[in-house]
Amino acid sequence: MSGRPADVGRLLISSEDGPGIVATVTAFLYARGANIISADQTSTDPVGGRFFQRIEFHLPDLLAWIDVLEREFADEVAGRFGMSFRIRPAVVPQRVALFVSKLDHCLLDLLWRWRGGELPIDVVQVVSNHPDLEKEVDRFGVPFAHIPVTRATKAEAEAATLSLLEGRVDLVVLARYMQILSGTFLERLGVPAINIHHSFLPAFVGAGPYAQAKERGVKLVGATAHYVTEDLDEGPIIEQDVARISHRDTVAQITGRGADIERLVLARAVRWHCEDRVLLDGSTTVVF
Amino acid sequence: MSGRPADVGRLLISSEDGPGIVATVTAFLYARGANIISADQTSTDPVGGRFFQRIEFHLPDLLAWIDVLEREFADEVAGRFGMSFRIRPAVVPQRVALFVSKLDHCLLDLLWRWRGGELPIDVVQVVSNHPDLEKEVDRFGVPFAHIPVTRATKAEAEAATLSLLEGRVDLVVLARYMQILSGTFLERLGVPAINIHHSFLPAFVGAGPYAQAKERGVKLVGATAHYVTEDLDEGPIIEQDVARISHRDTVAQITGRGADIERLVLARAVRWHCEDRVLLDGSTTVVF
Amino acid sequence: MSGRPADVGRLLISSEDGPGIVATVTAFLYARGANIISADQTSTDPVGGRFFQRIEFHLPDLLAWIDVLEREFADEVAGRFGMSFRIRPAVVPQRVALFVSKLDHCLLDLLWRWRGGELPIDVVQVVSNHPDLEKEVDRFGVPFAHIPVTRATKAEAEAATLSLLEGRVDLVVLARYMQILSGTFLERLGVPAINIHHSFLPAFVGAGPYAQAKERGVKLVGATAHYVTEDLDEGPIIEQDVARISHRDTVAQITGRGADIERLVLARAVRWHCEDRVLLDGSTTVVF
Amino acid sequence: MSGRPADVGRLLISSEDGPGIVATVTAFLYARGANIISADQTSTDPVGGRFFQRIEFHLPDLLAWIDVLEREFADEVAGRFGMSFRIRPAVVPQRVALFVSKLDHCLLDLLWRWRGGELPIDVVQVVSNHPDLEKEVDRFGVPFAHIPVTRATKAEAEAATLSLLEGRVDLVVLARYMQILSGTFLERLGVPAINIHHSFLPAFVGAGPYAQAKERGVKLVGATAHYVTEDLDEGPIIEQDVARISHRDTVAQITGRGADIERLVLARAVRWHCEDRVLLDGSTTVVF
Repeated sequence: MSGRPADVGRLLISSEDGPGIVATVTAFLYARGANIISADQTSTDPVGGRFFQRIEFHLPDLLAWIDVLEREFADEVAGRFGMSFRIRPAVVPQRVALFVSKLDHCLLDLLWRWRGGELPIDVVQVVSNHPDLEKEVDRFGVPFAHIPVTRATKAEAEAATLSLLEGRVDLVVLARYMQILSGTFLERLGVPAINIHHSFLPAFVGAGPYAQAKERGVKLVGATAHYVTEDLDEGPIIEQDVARISHRDTVAQITGRGADIERLVLARAVRWHCEDRVLLDGSTTVVF
Repeated sequence: MSGRPADVGRLLISSEDGPGIVATVTAFLYARGANIISADQTSTDPVGGRFFQRIEFHLPDLLAWIDVLEREFADEVAGRFGMSFRIRPAVVPQRVALFVSKLDHCLLDLLWRWRGGELPIDVVQVVSNHPDLEKEVDRFGVPFAHIPVTRATKAEAEAATLSLLEGRVDLVVLARYMQILSGTFLERLGVPAINIHHSFLPAFVGAGPYAQAKERGVKLVGATAHYVTEDLDEGPIIEQDVARISHRDTVAQITGRGADIERLVLARAVRWHCEDRVLLDGSTTVVF
Repeated sequence: MSGRPADVGRLLISSEDGPGIVATVTAFLYARGANIISADQTSTDPVGGRFFQRIEFHLPDLLAWIDVLEREFADEVAGRFGMSFRIRPAVVPQRVALFVSKLDHCLLDLLWRWRGGELPIDVVQVVSNHPDLEKEVDRFGVPFAHIPVTRATKAEAEAATLSLLEGRVDLVVLARYMQILSGTFLERLGVPAINIHHSFLPAFVGAGPYAQAKERGVKLVGATAHYVTEDLDEGPIIEQDVARISHRDTVAQITGRGADIERLVLARAVRWHCEDRVLLDGSTTVVF
Repeated sequence: MSGRPADVGRLLISSEDGPGIVATVTAFLYARGANIISADQTSTDPVGGRFFQRIEFHLPDLLAWIDVLEREFADEVAGRFGMSFRIRPAVVPQRVALFVSKLDHCLLDLLWRWRGGELPIDVVQVVSNHPDLEKEVDRFGVPFAHIPVTRATKAEAEAATLSLLEGRVDLVVLARYMQILSGTFLERLGVPAINIHHSFLPAFVGAGPYAQAKERGVKLVGATAHYVTEDLDEGPIIEQDVARISHRDTVAQITGRGADIERLVLARAVRWHCEDRVLLDGSTTVVF
């Protein structure tokens, strides 16, 4: 990719499908000297369906112009087609809070990839309902907040968490956080949350899913990364993957394979979300 | 592998684990001049667990000796350890009946692999609750029995099927057969039955699983081959595999990918079963 | 997808990248009442790179208008940007000749999928340098031409093949055809050819690649479908996939796993090509 | 698994195949009160082939008896069949030196898994031809030796490395170490070395393999872990895996996918080796 990375922007569009959308959008960008680097679009049905598009473009001095661009796009294009849209400068990392309980494999994988420059994020906070991982997190120079949660204190704990994060994050990642977030919390949070869980659901619910899977003779273990909704583990799926197991694997080995897949799948989901590649379409996703 | 294939036998053992099993079994074979070609064994726990073994061996004139071998093994080894066992000559193909409704992809895949010499089976009968696939099956020279099933005639239909198959088959394969077999039928049948279904279960039950999966944003479709038990789709799993899909795939394309995986997984499960590689362990399987 | 399938067209574009292409192309379609169903595009570099686009659109009475559309697009758009392009009605199947030697798994897989309506093709001819598969092919009602090839008769054989196919095919598929096609043949053929081979190349060249792979302890076998160029087995890759093997697999079993992968990969490559999803980009491909 | 882990041993056998091996070995163990937990065996050919076996057994007070066991096995069994064998207590971790140049993903993955208790190893030394990763390694409390290598100083550097490691390691892991080890070094080292590289070889040799792969339109990237021999990158393969890429992936993204696979594959190979699951068979491996 040529040009200054600071000048790269991303335009994300969701709307009802209909004639002329692409022509209008691309003419709008062309008229302002924006050069399209890549564009992806999909439609669930050209007649009466939903239309989704991601355009990555290069525009000299994007950061200076982005507010004007947004206002003009709203006035000239989005209103006409009843579109939702957002424009983001690619160079600005997403501010992320990581939630974790005791299992560290997903947390450390994200922290490590972040430090290695693999993820376009800024980890601004770790939140945990247990104190165990504080020392690990300290090494990465990220603030660690221990906010215990019990049935009695759940509302308080959620309020404390909201206070802590307010205005500071663009994304919450549940990196093996074993608490259910209330609908109220999610609403007040106001930014998306991504969760990771094993892929057997709705089979093998509850404790020891890998032991249950072994008992049934399952040959594949997998992980699913999805947006969090009030219906736990039922939100729109971003990414999934699997690994093969056999009767020779112990429950511990199967759990280890599952953890490896969880790390990879969660890291991919976070990267894709933060690269603005994931659009919501009701209960499903479009991943460009 | 050297030696006459007609002289290759397979010994399959299940028992409680305990000291001396392997030493006793291998000494038994050694004393009779049987040479072990390959052996697999596993134990769920050496103290009080279950023990499983598959031994492939070469014994000159196996077919002449096999009855003696079985009797002596029962007397000298199996009784002592409370073992279940069977000995099978590898050269004798398993006699298989294929059950199918209207979708032909699994049926044709098995027939084709059989004709190509890929499967150690003899397809002796196709049974269908619909007449549609008769002409296809005729081309392979296999008898096709059209046995319609309605709620009212289910018992009769099952009785007719049992009469047709009695003493003629070692295995039934449900190659997309959309009827539930009763517990009575399975018991009277007296041989194992293998089924194939999509891997989302227990999610996306009922009609149109691939459409449901698409609506949830699922990124992988898979298939599961398992032994049939009275609890439909809950029997011990033999094999599973998956393929990747995306939002760009239509329901028809996803269904096609699912069908490709179903064919492969069912063919593998049938081959492994007929090569005596699959041992039952309660609700799970050992696949050597 | 709504509307008459007969009215769906596909526009494929390759050009140097530069500002205004997408805006111009989409405005052209919009002005003619064509509604974009889906569009994919990619650019190797927005400054001085290569640009590729596939647009699927709906235009009432496409078949009546397609010649006008092509002429106008050439005049008004393609010339201005120095584009290569083609417009194809989606409803017209591609006419395909299958070349095969003795191994039938890829040939039969394609014939079977074609008959099952899975592939947007018309198989108009099978060509083989051996007579072995004539009877199989007859069952599908496809003409079978036995054209033997020896070192001495290669030029003649190629000439006979060209006469047979002239003006009758849009694509040649080498479904395990064990002869090298000359550069002259490919040039005179004038349509693309797709080949399938195992994925180890350039390792394990020559006879018995699976035996060589086993000797090296290889854990994965794979297949590669690619466009045929004069440099055998070096053309642009369309699709690849793999399957896992172990030391327990015999060379015959490994070969069988390889054949399964070859069938799947070749079928996908043919479908994608015939759905106009594959664009050439020098020695690589863009697969939309 | 029941019993004290300290009492678990592993017996590894390689020999020419022949009648009576398994019976003799298992009788030997049985006579000493050793209970077989798991056993795997394979034979390349029962007549004149090579035989390999791994037996995991439980023997009370193994650590006290292991020398006696070895001597008796050598005298009573190994000599008779011309066997190679080794007996290892499972509880003793393998002492490992990690070699690295500048890329840290494989090194950190192993250090992290080791600290997390996932690997039965003790990392006793990191060796690098560059100083860059010293600080990272310090955090894990592992000694870091910076031993630069130039063409002129290679012999010296190898000698220094040998002095450093002498008698201290059971395994060397090349975790992206970009120097070729001489045959002399490997011989004097006297313990196995495991290397990881991308899977395209022998294609795309030299610098920038992922860029080369992209230029050819490759759809899968993979990694291969193998034992190091004098013929660089040609040693017996322990494990391989792949990930899917597309034309949309940049060289940087493809490289990242490749690095993810490298980490997983190397970690698996190291674990399997240190669990005594890998036996050499000429240029190939048996992985139990």
